Amino acid sequence: MSLDGHYDDQNVFAKIIQGELPCVKVYEDDDVLSFLDIFPQAQGHTLVIPKGVSARNFLDFPEDRIGTYMSRVQMIAKGVTRALSPDGVVITQFNGAAAGQTVFHLHFHILPKFDNLPFQRHGQGQPADQDVLQSLAEKIRASL
Amino acid sequence: MSLDGHYDDQNVFAKIIQGELPCVKVYEDDDVLSFLDIFPQAQGHTLVIPKGVSARNFLDFPEDRIGTYMSRVQMIAKGVTRALSPDGVVITQFNGAAAGQTVFHLHFHILPKFDNLPFQRHGQGQPADQDVLQSLAEKIRASL
Repeated sequence: MSLDGHYDDQNVFAKIIQGELPCVKVYEDDDVLSFLDIFPQAQGHTLVIPKGVSARNFLDFPEDRIGTYMSRVQMIAKGVTRALSPDGVVITQFNGAAAGQTVFHLHFHILPKFDNLPFQRHGQGQPADQDVLQSLAEKIRASL
Repeated sequence: MSLDGHYDDQNVFAKIIQGELPCVKVYEDDDVLSFLDIFPQAQGHTLVIPKGVSARNFLDFPEDRIGTYMSRVQMIAKGVTRALSPDGVVITQFNGAAAGQTVFHLHFHILPKFDNLPFQRHGQGQPADQDVLQSLAEKIRASL
């Protein structure tokens, strides 16, 4: 079953945590790293990933870390909401390729929803303009 | 903005918690209640709601309750996975009507994803057959 399997410490998000790949950072502390999705489904599409843990998804994430991790997800979702004033916010997380997961390091998506603007398909299309992402990240950082 | 507003203690989930409306229960303790969605987007579509708190969504949920609540979401998602052996699992939560929220009491959706079976649209279509729901809930309860 695609939900099983070993954590691959060469996955893209592990490399971002290690500083081997760049990201447009929104927030970082000892427990989490948050950055903008480079294939955004919506303006301000933000990811929050745990640091220092080999979890492929939410099902295999250590229970004793859930409180801290999800508190950061909430904190950053509030910041995104203050910064961008969306009409709604979707918080979502995919477990397994069949569910739409493409990087196998646990991540929650924070998706601002604007009226009359449908979400783009996950992980499709062109990467976002870096200047646009930097400008959005700056706004979000200022609202945390 | 639709994300704002007062908690309405007559919402459907508040009434389910109070026992004024029925549900097909999967799990209950002092902190959460979990039951099957009667308009399932997938077989085994399960909801987890916090008890004893007036939270419309995840953004206004008290931070000190996040750990317990999300630990239950994980525990029940694991149970759903063991019970139904889906190919993937989507965990998602809508903040505000614009994001697809229809009941304004915080709830996380646990959505088993089976290969080649697309999700139904949220809150659309006919309610599920009660006998089918009861049978699914029994399987999930046995796997918690």
